[in-house]
Order: sequence, then structure tokens, then C-alpha cells
Amino acid sequence: MSEESAGGIRDLGFARLDTDRAARTGDPEVVYGAGKTPQQVVEILTTLHEAHPERAVLATRLTERAVEVLVEALPDVVVDPVARAATLGPLPSPRGTVCVVSAGTSDAPVATEAALTARVYGAGVRVVTDVGVAGLHRVLAARADLESADCLVVVAGMEGALPSVVGGLVGVPLVAVPTSVGYGAAFGGLAALLGMLNSCAPGVTVVNIDNGFGAGVFAARVARNSRPRDIEPA
Amino acid sequence: MSEESAGGIRDLGFARLDTDRAARTGDPEVVYGAGKTPQQVVEILTTLHEAHPERAVLATRLTERAVEVLVEALPDVVVDPVARAATLGPLPSPRGTVCVVSAGTSDAPVATEAALTARVYGAGVRVVTDVGVAGLHRVLAARADLESADCLVVVAGMEGALPSVVGGLVGVPLVAVPTSVGYGAAFGGLAALLGMLNSCAPGVTVVNIDNGFGAGVFAARVARNSRPRDIEPA
Amino acid sequence: MSEESAGGIRDLGFARLDTDRAARTGDPEVVYGAGKTPQQVVEILTTLHEAHPERAVLATRLTERAVEVLVEALPDVVVDPVARAATLGPLPSPRGTVCVVSAGTSDAPVATEAALTARVYGAGVRVVTDVGVAGLHRVLAARADLESADCLVVVAGMEGALPSVVGGLVGVPLVAVPTSVGYGAAFGGLAALLGMLNSCAPGVTVVNIDNGFGAGVFAARVARNSRPRDIEPA
Amino acid sequence: MSEESAGGIRDLGFARLDTDRAARTGDPEVVYGAGKTPQQVVEILTTLHEAHPERAVLATRLTERAVEVLVEALPDVVVDPVARAATLGPLPSPRGTVCVVSAGTSDAPVATEAALTARVYGAGVRVVTDVGVAGLHRVLAARADLESADCLVVVAGMEGALPSVVGGLVGVPLVAVPTSVGYGAAFGGLAALLGMLNSCAPGVTVVNIDNGFGAGVFAARVARNSRPRDIEPA
Amino acid sequence: MSEESAGGIRDLGFARLDTDRAARTGDPEVVYGAGKTPQQVVEILTTLHEAHPERAVLATRLTERAVEVLVEALPDVVVDPVARAATLGPLPSPRGTVCVVSAGTSDAPVATEAALTARVYGAGVRVVTDVGVAGLHRVLAARADLESADCLVVVAGMEGALPSVVGGLVGVPLVAVPTSVGYGAAFGGLAALLGMLNSCAPGVTVVNIDNGFGAGVFAARVARNSRPRDIEPA
Amino acid sequence: MSEESAGGIRDLGFARLDTDRAARTGDPEVVYGAGKTPQQVVEILTTLHEAHPERAVLATRLTERAVEVLVEALPDVVVDPVARAATLGPLPSPRGTVCVVSAGTSDAPVATEAALTARVYGAGVRVVTDVGVAGLHRVLAARADLESADCLVVVAGMEGALPSVVGGLVGVPLVAVPTSVGYGAAFGGLAALLGMLNSCAPGVTVVNIDNGFGAGVFAARVARNSRPRDIEPA
Amino acid sequence: MSEESAGGIRDLGFARLDTDRAARTGDPEVVYGAGKTPQQVVEILTTLHEAHPERAVLATRLTERAVEVLVEALPDVVVDPVARAATLGPLPSPRGTVCVVSAGTSDAPVATEAALTARVYGAGVRVVTDVGVAGLHRVLAARADLESADCLVVVAGMEGALPSVVGGLVGVPLVAVPTSVGYGAAFGGLAALLGMLNSCAPGVTVVNIDNGFGAGVFAARVARNSRPRDIEPA
Amino acid sequence: MSEESAGGIRDLGFARLDTDRAARTGDPEVVYGAGKTPQQVVEILTTLHEAHPERAVLATRLTERAVEVLVEALPDVVVDPVARAATLGPLPSPRGTVCVVSAGTSDAPVATEAALTARVYGAGVRVVTDVGVAGLHRVLAARADLESADCLVVVAGMEGALPSVVGGLVGVPLVAVPTSVGYGAAFGGLAALLGMLNSCAPGVTVVNIDNGFGAGVFAARVARNSRPRDIEPA
Repeated sequence: MSEESAGGIRDLGFARLDTDRAARTGDPEVVYGAGKTPQQVVEILTTLHEAHPERAVLATRLTERAVEVLVEALPDVVVDPVARAATLGPLPSPRGTVCVVSAGTSDAPVATEAALTARVYGAGVRVVTDVGVAGLHRVLAARADLESADCLVVVAGMEGALPSVVGGLVGVPLVAVPTSVGYGAAFGGLAALLGMLNSCAPGVTVVNIDNGFGAGVFAARVARNSRPRDIEPA
Repeated sequence: MSEESAGGIRDLGFARLDTDRAARTGDPEVVYGAGKTPQQVVEILTTLHEAHPERAVLATRLTERAVEVLVEALPDVVVDPVARAATLGPLPSPRGTVCVVSAGTSDAPVATEAALTARVYGAGVRVVTDVGVAGLHRVLAARADLESADCLVVVAGMEGALPSVVGGLVGVPLVAVPTSVGYGAAFGGLAALLGMLNSCAPGVTVVNIDNGFGAGVFAARVARNSRPRDIEPA
Repeated sequence: MSEESAGGIRDLGFARLDTDRAARTGDPEVVYGAGKTPQQVVEILTTLHEAHPERAVLATRLTERAVEVLVEALPDVVVDPVARAATLGPLPSPRGTVCVVSAGTSDAPVATEAALTARVYGAGVRVVTDVGVAGLHRVLAARADLESADCLVVVAGMEGALPSVVGGLVGVPLVAVPTSVGYGAAFGGLAALLGMLNSCAPGVTVVNIDNGFGAGVFAARVARNSRPRDIEPA
Repeated sequence: MSEESAGGIRDLGFARLDTDRAARTGDPEVVYGAGKTPQQVVEILTTLHEAHPERAVLATRLTERAVEVLVEALPDVVVDPVARAATLGPLPSPRGTVCVVSAGTSDAPVATEAALTARVYGAGVRVVTDVGVAGLHRVLAARADLESADCLVVVAGMEGALPSVVGGLVGVPLVAVPTSVGYGAAFGGLAALLGMLNSCAPGVTVVNIDNGFGAGVFAARVARNSRPRDIEPA
Repeated sequence: MSEESAGGIRDLGFARLDTDRAARTGDPEVVYGAGKTPQQVVEILTTLHEAHPERAVLATRLTERAVEVLVEALPDVVVDPVARAATLGPLPSPRGTVCVVSAGTSDAPVATEAALTARVYGAGVRVVTDVGVAGLHRVLAARADLESADCLVVVAGMEGALPSVVGGLVGVPLVAVPTSVGYGAAFGGLAALLGMLNSCAPGVTVVNIDNGFGAGVFAARVARNSRPRDIEPA
Repeated sequence: MSEESAGGIRDLGFARLDTDRAARTGDPEVVYGAGKTPQQVVEILTTLHEAHPERAVLATRLTERAVEVLVEALPDVVVDPVARAATLGPLPSPRGTVCVVSAGTSDAPVATEAALTARVYGAGVRVVTDVGVAGLHRVLAARADLESADCLVVVAGMEGALPSVVGGLVGVPLVAVPTSVGYGAAFGGLAALLGMLNSCAPGVTVVNIDNGFGAGVFAARVARNSRPRDIEPA
Repeated sequence: MSEESAGGIRDLGFARLDTDRAARTGDPEVVYGAGKTPQQVVEILTTLHEAHPERAVLATRLTERAVEVLVEALPDVVVDPVARAATLGPLPSPRGTVCVVSAGTSDAPVATEAALTARVYGAGVRVVTDVGVAGLHRVLAARADLESADCLVVVAGMEGALPSVVGGLVGVPLVAVPTSVGYGAAFGGLAALLGMLNSCAPGVTVVNIDNGFGAGVFAARVARNSRPRDIEPA
Repeated sequence: MSEESAGGIRDLGFARLDTDRAARTGDPEVVYGAGKTPQQVVEILTTLHEAHPERAVLATRLTERAVEVLVEALPDVVVDPVARAATLGPLPSPRGTVCVVSAGTSDAPVATEAALTARVYGAGVRVVTDVGVAGLHRVLAARADLESADCLVVVAGMEGALPSVVGGLVGVPLVAVPTSVGYGAAFGGLAALLGMLNSCAPGVTVVNIDNGFGAGVFAARVARNSRPRDIEPA
């Protein structure tokens, strides 16, 4: 082991990688692509993959250009174009179930980022889309999917009311993700954020606007540590 | 007619009353009680009632002390303690129906103010309470009441999601009233206000925080001018 | 009926269309163009038109490119360039009258969107433009048009004072639309929004910034259900 | 002259008074009463009056208790209870005319503070009250008073639309004063402040919320330096 | 069963109680004490307890007066004075572990409310107090407690940095609770709320300011459904 | 006179021009260029100039392209490139003096717009630039210029402190213009705006962020009506 | 040493005291009085004083009642009523000089808290009061005091312009403290805070609104470590 | 000396340079590049360098184009591409030590600007990067560097928690710089700014968002005036 990687730290010049993080928390390595050049993303991804070839590394917030460079440089990379994300290496076996619910088609990038993240972080994932509050029958139709999950991720923009409706239906842990979908007094997701923070359904928690990644991390940690459904609690 | 009431204007010293307003708009006279002494409320109410003895005058935002003074000074006054409001004179015959829906028990003062106002402004009124978004079955159970109204007033605090749910169920004109119920990031009703302004249900309009009066005025104007239900449109 | 359209739901892959919505609310189908590719707009519009060939379908928030593609793909489409909107199919017979009033020439896109929407939703529409508060004579000159409408839509940016002035003149139900016209402390329409929410004229309701569509929907619902003018109320 | 008043500065321990300010700017001395004990107000007022017995000294933002103490300690003091202010010493001869216009009865304290301030600062003052935007005929009836003034002070709370209406009628310099009258989304005067800053009438300037004093100072400086009406400009 | 309690709904006049909620979600009944009279709290608590005598009912946000009335009326009630909360009936057996961590002594009411809530909702609870960010050694000393929990609730006011520090140490699901502790630019908890929403530690979720109850509900749902520590995941 | 210009109103299709405004207020005609095509600016400018050939018409907020088109279409137009404005027709004789003071070189566009506007509105104008608060000697050096003006326009971005300093030096009416110069917590001019509204110097009034035009209008109205300096007040 | 004080930590039940903090940073112990009962303040102060009898302990944000209880319980306590603070034990020898400058008399509590804190933290302190921006001569007269200090603390409310003026005069490190003095658009100190953050004078740093304590701590750390004035730098 | 440079002022037409500023405050000359053309930057830099050839002049906020022009026009210029800044002339001998600490790689431009500024202003500089709060071991590993500095500059975006952690470790004067790194509820650096202003670590001061320059100026002034480490305080 070279000096620059002592203590699990690899120094690439433009970034110091803590390649032992997984060992500490059980989570995979992640490259946050925003503000990085495509070449930097490739380099970090490669380094992390070499350190942990047995488990998928995740890259998020990729520009179109970064995706092109990635695909060319790393033939084994798997890109999710809707989530603007990519993985390199085998996905872990799924444990528990995260159900990602989204309100409108415009929320898809955030919802998909949450779903992919949860999967890479070790959970099984189920996706339910386009169940807006103004069409209650769609929410009600998805009830079985919602109830059988170990953790819910509910994604919505505009007024962000979906978590309240879902949270009133089922008692599953629920992480709400406000999106920046909307205009005018949506104020870039602020309306949805405040709506979710003030949800009248108890037990709703919230992450930052458009932070599908954070919700996926949290939900996976809950789901993969959940009691299997066939082991009934006392 | 004395000089000081020329042109339908009566000058009480601390206020100038436009006693011909009703003739101009078909609406009753109203005393906004906030910031006025109980004695001033009595005096204005008396003056307006004398100018229009055939139709109820409305007083809103009354303090407890104002209510006491009113009841003693004007035995014919009818007080609605929940709405913190009072009327003097006969209510008009109801035309059309306003349905006032509220989310929680804490929203009652605002919802009741809206209901009383709509009634004094000439509409029939139906009230549905405690139909929070986190208990969808209550909303669904009220669907017939919602659909048969000429105008809906939907009152909610916290995340203010109820108008989106109701507006997705029925196509009746819907006025949403955010309330200051909540704490923390509710910011005194701001969260509910923003939520309602960004409702994904089309055709939702909004009034100021806690403005049950304004919603009642608007809804009554819509309802009393509505086509009777037995006259089917072409 | 194919499986994918069971229950009035058509699934296009990128969107699930609820082609029975009209039956539920009496409203037309609408395509919200923002965030959709021109080809997606064409496909949804076509699908909805096929489901309801007897009644106009509305597409809003169209980009210039979307308009070009639409016109080429669907020769029968009717484009309103100021409103950045288009319709496909015959307009319904007008019932009742919505009067759309706007303050300045920059408010035209929002006002025109409101007018077209109200028309497609079944109301007759009258338009009064350029009646800014700083030129009261123009407002007063339009008084007859204002009074004879069943519902008013009042569009203004900057300080958003026009609804207060109009609402003080007539007792017609009034929906105010703040626009993002202005700069500096207009804060993208916030000043107009707050001004309208705090209107001293009773019975003013408000929609989101630049939401001409929502105001049009609401006003049409009020107008088309209004008592014909020659049937005097009791 | 004692040492502690060298250079026109008098040091009272809790405050250093610049008793030569009047000589520098032509303005009177003023005691800002907020946050001072009644006894401190008396002491400062006395000191300033002794330094300038020939011209009125002004005390603003007085509590009820401060007024009681003032009246007892200084029999010559003249109290304006609505403005929560007092003067000691002879008022200057009026030069020019300030017209103070206010929208509602709740704006009276601020409007009266502006009027008294303008008078103490040397202008003649005319007051027009209760001319809300929702009652345009009152505004129009006051047009002659508005046009003949050298400077207007227009006071309004809630949506603060009155300055736009007045500023569209006449070309007189206009200072707008937003008040904290209102509730909910009035946000303590913010709605009125933003409305006034974005007025579509050119040439409207604005002071802080409830700052009748500042508007009065400004307007008096304009009015007392104005060309007499009988000296026509070239 | 009387008519007024049909369908698990009991109508007390001032509130409609859904006494079957527990059956639907596995959660206990709760009385939110804010805005209710002490007598109302007693009545609701009694009704809910009678419906579910086998499981504790929780009352939160109690005033001092409400606590006095409760203790007198219901001798079996157990009051937690720091949490301003009370329980009536036997606590459930604890399943899983929630660890509640708080930054300063002023955060105690919120932290204690979270702890009591989590306990009543069925989790075991461990409490770690006074581990402010500015004293890192206290955080580090608590690491074993943090790592062995199934869900963390981290409570902090002012800049709200504690969740970032804790979230960087361990990979346990973490719910952050901002408190209104602070002054000036803390803006009633807004600074802490924004800090937590923007945490650089992945997987931090957030609830409303001072919402210890919501965090406790969420954390209990996670913990009581967690895989027992001695059943290792595959 | 053709029908479309009856009552001093000329209708260009895209705008209705009130060509009698000057007669009403003594002010010139103005074209607000923002949001208009270059050709529209030319057309309006031409129409207004034809109606009032004896007095300059002002066009503001011109894009570079609009300036090019203007210069080509109207050879007599005079362009001020810093102010992004142009005039057509002879300037009026100056009456009174407006002194425009600005803090930094980045404030020049706003300051120049104010100066040109004041000149077109009939005042004489003096300009003092680059007198930032952090270089007090420059402010003090300009004192004579400040004192001899009839109205001051003080332009500053960032913290907007210059009006307080200038307003403490002289008793001349002072209009403050916050600019959007700055970054970060300047929030697009909000910091300067708030600073100016809270100025500790009495008699400071404020206009919208970057609104040099409004300040120029106001200041010209004050200055041109001011008592000539050689006619001493009584 | 008892168990509960192991590692320099003393546990009082309601608070854990880190009695070794001084050793780590060279700073004194401090009791933040807000939110503590008078008896708790006495108990903590006593405990800290016993641990460090050789150096003053500081208590801040004391209520009037806390001061009364303190004086009675601890005869040796020294109270500063303006700063609402108290010390117990001998002050350290002063090293270096902090100069605290304040704009208005209402800023005195914050300025005095800063001065006392700096003194208890080991610096010499000089105080300059009432040097508002609107009276530049007072600022200029204090220039020598400003220049000879090792660190400046500049306290101002309202528009908070004083730091810019002082920072433009001298190159001494300057900590600005915004105060909540003001009303309306001062927004509880926000205007002053933003003004100071955007100061055009380079090298101005800012603390929280009303945080005289924090400014005093910082300034003392700078001053007491400063090169003595008679040791000229190379 | 030509007339235009009398009193140390050089007038370049587009800017007036105060070439004696250094003499007054001991600081270097600086060109703020934002909003200036590359040619203007060259011209000002040249002029300032000619006036002070013995000491480096600093140019900040340079665009890429400005850097290109600078390098071509002034071969002796030294560019720091990360800081987007350049110097011309010899750097001063370092006195004292500023340690610049930053949280993430995205904070590098601001941190580097702070470091270069501090160096040009006369301090020695040490840089510690990538010590995010979520990786405490990196912070702890840098403790010796932190403790031995005379002033710390701590740069962080997102929740801005790093200054609290660092400020809790050491008692060195600490200037915090919030950056605009983040998204959603980071609100362009507002979350970090509020977090730093509310730091629970005493003695943290804050500058504007992204203002590395201001922090560098302040820190250099503190460091270069600090007591040398080998001269122990009494």
C-alpha cells in the first residue's frame, strides 16, 4: 500500500477519498458528480471501484457530458438516464423493501435517484408513479404496495401534499422528498418543503429539496435492517 | 336627511360610514371589530342597523369584552361565539349553497366565520368539519355534500393540503382558506398559504391567512347567483 | 377497450392519462406543456382528442418549438401565440360570462391564458386590457363590462393593486392573478401576490403567480353555473 | 457655557444632545420616546426646550405613562393623543402645504404623526382621512386637495395600494408610508411596503413601515422650500 | 355500540375521535393538547383510554394548568413535566432501541417529548444529553450508544450542527429535530432547520421545529420493526 | 382627430398611449423599454414625439439591440449608453437643481438613469460619483454640492449606507436608490433596500431597487417647484 | 475528586459543567442565563467559581429577578445592570485593548455586554458611545481611540452603517454587532445584519444579532494576543 | 504630480483610485474584478502597481477572459487560477500565521481567495482542506495546525457546521466564511450563513457568503499584529 493511501485515505490531488468508509457504516462509496469534471468523475469512480470491486459504487448528479465520458471510459458502467446516475460493480443482494412513490411525471428524476440509491445501498425497491393527491383513487389503489414496504419514500413538488395523504393511510416509516417542480409561489421547492414539514400525518420526516439521494440512503438503512415479514414481532 | 349623511355617508367622528354600499353591491354592511373599542362597535352597528333595519348587519373579529358590551347594549344581537362574530337584524333568505369544509378542530373559528359570513351575505350554508387529509375516509364520506354545493370554502392550517384533495374529487368552485394553526415551520400560516397557492388541483383560489370573512363573501356571491339545481344547463 | 385503458386510464409510457376526468367534473382535458417534449405534447393531445373528439382539448405553456411541431403534426390545432397555448377540437357553447381585466401590456400572456382557458372550460369571455391603477379613468370607463360579468379575472404585476380598485367598484366574484412582471422588490411576483392577498376589497380570491390557467378554470366554473341574467333572483 | 455643553453638545449621562442641530439643518429638535423612561423624556425635552425656547421641540412614540408624566411635569406641553406625540414651545409659521392622506381609520396614529411632524418642521398641513382604494369616489372627491399641495404623504396598510391611485391622479411629489395594519400575509406591513415600492405610478417614494415621523420630516422639507403658488414658474 | 361511535368514530361535540386508528397503524392514541382546554384534554384522554385500556394513551403539549387538572381528575395518569406530556395506561413492551441525543440543556423539552413518544409508540429508548458540537469529546464518548441503536433522534437548536457530526460517525438511520432555541438570526429555529436539511452527512432526515413528537413516532416505527441484533443479516 | 385618438388616447394595437398625460401632470412622456421589441419602442417613441414635438420624450431600459434600431430609425434620437436610455426632442429649460450622488462605479447605470430622468422631467442636474461610505473624505469634500441642491438622489448598493451619511450632513430632501450591486447576502439589492428604509438620518425616502427612473421623476418634481435660491424664505 | 466530576466534568443534574474548559482555551467560564432559573444561575456560578477561584466567572442575559437572587446569595458578585450581566472573582490583568463603539443609546445593553465580556476574557477595554452615522463629526472625533485599539467592536441597530464608516477610517480588525434596535423593516435586526455583511469596507466581520458576548470573546482573543504597541513590527 | 492625482487620487475616467490608501491602513491596493472589463482591470492594476511598485497589488474575481488579457498584457503578473485572482509585485514578508480550513473540494475557490488575500495583506498562510464535519477524524488530525495559528479562516457551504466544530476545539480567533455550495434549501449560502451566525462555539465571526477576500483581509490584520509565539504573554 502506497503512502498516500495510508489509513484508507487515497489522495487524487483534487480529492481525498476515504476508501474505508464502507467498512465503517456498511454503505457503498458514492461520487457526487455536481461541480466535478467528467474526467474527475471517471477517476474517482475507478479508484473507488478498485478499492471495492465486490460492491457497486454510485455516481449521482451526472451531466450529459459526464455520462458520455463515463460510458466510453468505463464499459462496465450502468447508467440510469432518468436518475442522471450510474453504478459500477455488482449490486448487493436486496434486504427489505423500500417503496418510492411520486406525485407527477416531472418528479421522476428525483424519485428515480432515490430508488437507485436505495438499491445500491442494499434494499429492494418498488416504484409507484403518478399518484397525485388530486387523483385519490390512484393513491388508494396503491395501498397494498405502500403497506407492505419497510420504508416509504414519497416524492412530490408543488404543494407537496402527497406525504400527508400516504402517511394518513399507513403506519410505515415515511421519508418525504420535496422537489423543485412548480413555479411562482412554489419558490423552487420551498412550498413543498414547508408543506411536508408541517404534515398533519404523524411520523413524516423530510430531506432537502430534490434530495432523492439522501432519502434513498435513509430508506435503505431502515429497510435492510428491518425484521423479515415472516418473523412476526412478539 | 342631515348634512352629515349626504350621499349615503354618515360621519361618526371616528369613522365615516357608507350606508349605501348595500345598494351598490347587494352585500350587507359589516363592522370589522379588530382595533375598535366595544363602544365604537356598538355605535357603528346601531347606525348601520338603523339605515338598513330590514337586513342583518355583521360584526366580526370581536373581543370577548366587545361581545359582553354588545349583548348588554343591543338585546337583539345574535352572537356566534366560535366565529367571534355577531349579527343584528333578520338574515336574508338563502339562495344557493355554500359548503364550508375544515380540516381540524383548531380551524373552527375561521371556518365558522366563513359560514356565518356566507349566510349573512345571502347564501345557504352547509358545514363539514374535521375532515383532515390524514383521514381520507372522512373526506370521501363527505363527497355528496361537496358535489351538491355551488361553492366550497375549504379551511386548513399546517400544510394546507385539504383543498388539493377536495379539488381533485369535485369540480365545484373552491375557495381555500389557510389558517395560522400550526407551529415552527408553519410560520403563522405561510406553509398552508403556499401549499394552497401551489395546489395541483386546478381551479383552487386562495384568500389571506385566517380570512374566513373574505372567503365567505366570495362564496356567497358565487352561490346566490348560481343556477338553481333544477334548471339544468343546456 | 384495450387493457391499458381500463377504467378510463390510458398509459403512454411517459404519462398515464385519465380520459374520464371530463365525465367526473364537466371540465375538458388539458396538457400542461412545461417540461414535456414537443413530441410528447403531440402524442398526449392526440390521445385525449381521440377520446373526446366532440370537445376541445387544451395545451398550455407551450414553447415556440412545441408550437411549430404541433402545427405541423396536427393541422387542425388552433394556436394562441400570446397565451402560448393551443386547442384541438370544437369549443363548447359559451354559458355565462367571464371578464378578464389586465393592468399592463406585459401582463398579456397571463391574461390571455386565463381568457382562453375560461373559454375552453365553457364560459363566454370578455377581455379588457391596459387598465392600470395609475390611470383610473380607464378603470371607470370599463365599469359596465365589469358589472355585467358573472366572474372577473383581474391580472396585474408590480404592486398588484388593480383587484382592490375593481373589487371596490363592483360586487362580482373576483379572482386575482399576480404576475411576475416587475423588478427589484417585486421579487418575481411576490409583491403583487401579497398585495392581492391583503386586498381591502372584500371577496377577492387569489391564485398562484402567473397562473392564468387556474384563474380561468375557476372563473369558468362559476360563470357557466350562473343564473342567466334574465332570470332575476327572488 | 459649561464644559459639558461645549460645541453645542449637552451630555445628560444617558444621552448626549446635539443642541446645534437646528442651526445646521433648519429642523427642530426631536425626542424619540421609544425605549426611554418617562423621566428621561422629560429631562431631554426640557434641555432641548431651554436651548431653543423660540421653537417647538417634538417628542414622538410616547407611551401612555410618558404622556401622563409629561403633562404633570411640563404644563406647557401640548399632547396629540392619536399621534402619541407632544410638542413644547411655539410652532413655526407654516410655509407651503403638506397634504396627509390615509386609507383607513386604523392608519390614524401613523398619519397623525406625519401631520404633526410636518407642522413642527415648518410646513402647513392638510389632512384627508379614510379614502380607501376600495371606495374610489372618496379619492376622486379629494382631488383638489391633493393637487394643490406641495408634497403628499399617503398612509396605508394592508395592500398599500392608495399611493398608486393617488400618484396616478396628480403629479405632486408623493411620500408613501406603509403601516403595519393588517394580519396574516400582511406580515406586519411588508405587503404594503412591497406594494408601495413597486407602485406603477412614477415618482412614488417610500419610508419605513409606520414611519410617519420620517415622512413628515421629508414632506416638510419639500413643502417649506416650495415656490409660492402665486409665483408661477416660467 | 351507540350510533355516535359507529365505525370507530366517537363524537364528543368538540372533537370526533377515531378510536380504531390503532388497529389500522399499530400506533397508540394521542391527544395534542395545544389549543384545548384542560377539561377537553381530560375528556378525550378518558374516552380514548376507555376504548383502549390495554395500551397507554399519550397527551402532549400540556399547559401547567392542564397538568394540574389531569392529575386531579385522573389519578392513574403519569406526567413527564419536562416533556410537558402525560400517559394513561400501561406502556407497551419495548421492541428495538431509539437513542435520543440532544445538544444543550435548553433542548430538553423537545428531546424528552421525542423519548417519551418513542416509548409509548413501542420502542425502547436511551437518552444522551448535552453533547454539543463545540465539545466533540462528549459526542465521541457516546459513540457506542449511538452505534447500537436502531434509530437515532438528534435534537439541536442554534446552528443545528449536531446531526451532521453524529451522522458522520455512524450509519444508523437518523432523524434530526431542530429546536427554537437561540435568538436573533436563529429566527425561531429556521437556522437549525436549514442546517439540518443541508447536512453533509448522507441519510439525515428532518422534522418540523420543536417536533419531538413526530420524530419519536417515526423513530419508534423504525426501531420496533428492526431486526433483532442477534439475528445477523445475510 | 381620428377616432382612435379620442380623449388623448392613441391605440397602437400592442399599447394604448395616453398622449394627454403631460397636460395633466406637467411631466414628459416615457417609454419603458423592458419587454418591448426594438420596433415597438421606435413606434411608441415616434407617436409620442409627434404628439409633443416641443418637449423631449424619454425611453428607458433599452437593450443594446433597441439602441441600434433606434439610432438607425430616428437620427435625432440622443442616446445615453450608461443609462441605457434615449431622448427624442428638445430638453426643457432646467428649473431648480437635483444632485445625484453615487457610491461606486458599478452604480453608474442607475445613477445616470436618475440624472437623465430628472433632466428630462425639467430639473437641472449635478452629478457626484464614487463617494463611498468607506472613504468619508470624498463625502465631506462634496458637501457644498450637496447643500446647494433642491433635492438629492443618493444611489448605493451593497449595504446602502451612503444615504445615512449624506442625510446626516445636510437637511435637503433626499431620495435613496438601492442598487442590485453586490453578491451573497446582498440578495439582489435587498440589503441596501432594508438599510435605506431603516436609515437613522430622518427624512430619507426610498424607491425600488435599481429604480433610477422613479427617483429622477420624484426629485425633478421637487426641484422644479422649489423656491429660487435668491428668494429667501420669510 | 468525586466520580461525577471525573475528567473535569461536574454534573449538577440540570447541567453538566466542563470545568476544564479554561485550561483548554485560556478563556473564563461563562453562565448563559437565558432560560435558567435564578437558583440554577446561582448554583452554576458557585460551582464554576469554586473550580476557578482565581479568575472571574461571567454570567450573562440575567433577568432582573436573577440579579436580585444573585446579589442576595453571593455578596461578592459584581453586577453590570446595563449589560444584564455579572462577574464573580477577580478580573484578569488586561492585555491589549478592545475599543467598543456604539451608534445609539438603545444599543447600550449589547455594547456593554461586549465590553464586559472582553474585559473578563482578558483584554483592556475602551468604550465610545453614541457615534451615529448621521453625526459624522462624532465618529471623526473618536478616530484616535479607534486607531490605537487592537480590535474594534462596532455595535449598531437600524441600518447598521457604522461599521462601514469606521472600517473606512482605520485598518484595525473590526467585529460588527447588529442589534435588534429599530422597527418595521428592521425586522428584528435583520436589516442591520445584512448591512454589516455587505459592508463596502474590507475586513469587517459580523456576529449574530444582539450577540455582544460573542463579539467580546472574539475581540479579547485578538487583543490579548496582539503585539504590544511599543514592539514595532519589522 | 499632475492635477488629477492631487491628494493621492488618480482619476482614470471610469474609476478614481485612492493611491494613498495603503499609507492610511497598511494594506495593499486591490482591484475588485467583477463588473470590470479585462482592459479596465489591466489599466487599474498597472496604475496601482506604478504607485506602489514595492508591494504586490491584488486583483480578485477575475473572469477567464480577464486572466488571459492580464497574462498577455502584464508578463509579471502571477495568477492563482483556483482563487480566480492575480498579484502584481513582490509579496510582503509574512508576519504571523493565518490558517485557512475548508470543508469540501467545492469550497476551494473561496478558501484559496482567502489564503491568497491574507498572504498579500502580509500574513503567513497555512491551508488545510477537505476536513468536513461528517469526517471528524480529519478535523481532529488537523488540531495542531489549528492551535498554532494566530487567526483561523474556516470555509464551508451546505449547513456550515465546520466553524462550530473547529471553534469548540481551539480558542484561536476564528472567521467563518459561508459558501454558496449546496442546492435546494441551501438557498445560495443562506443556510451556511445562518448556521455560522448561530454557532454554539463562542467567538466565531462571519463574513458575507463567498467572501474569501474579506475574511483574508481581516485574518491578515489580526495575524500580522499578533504577538510572536516565542514572546510569551505575562
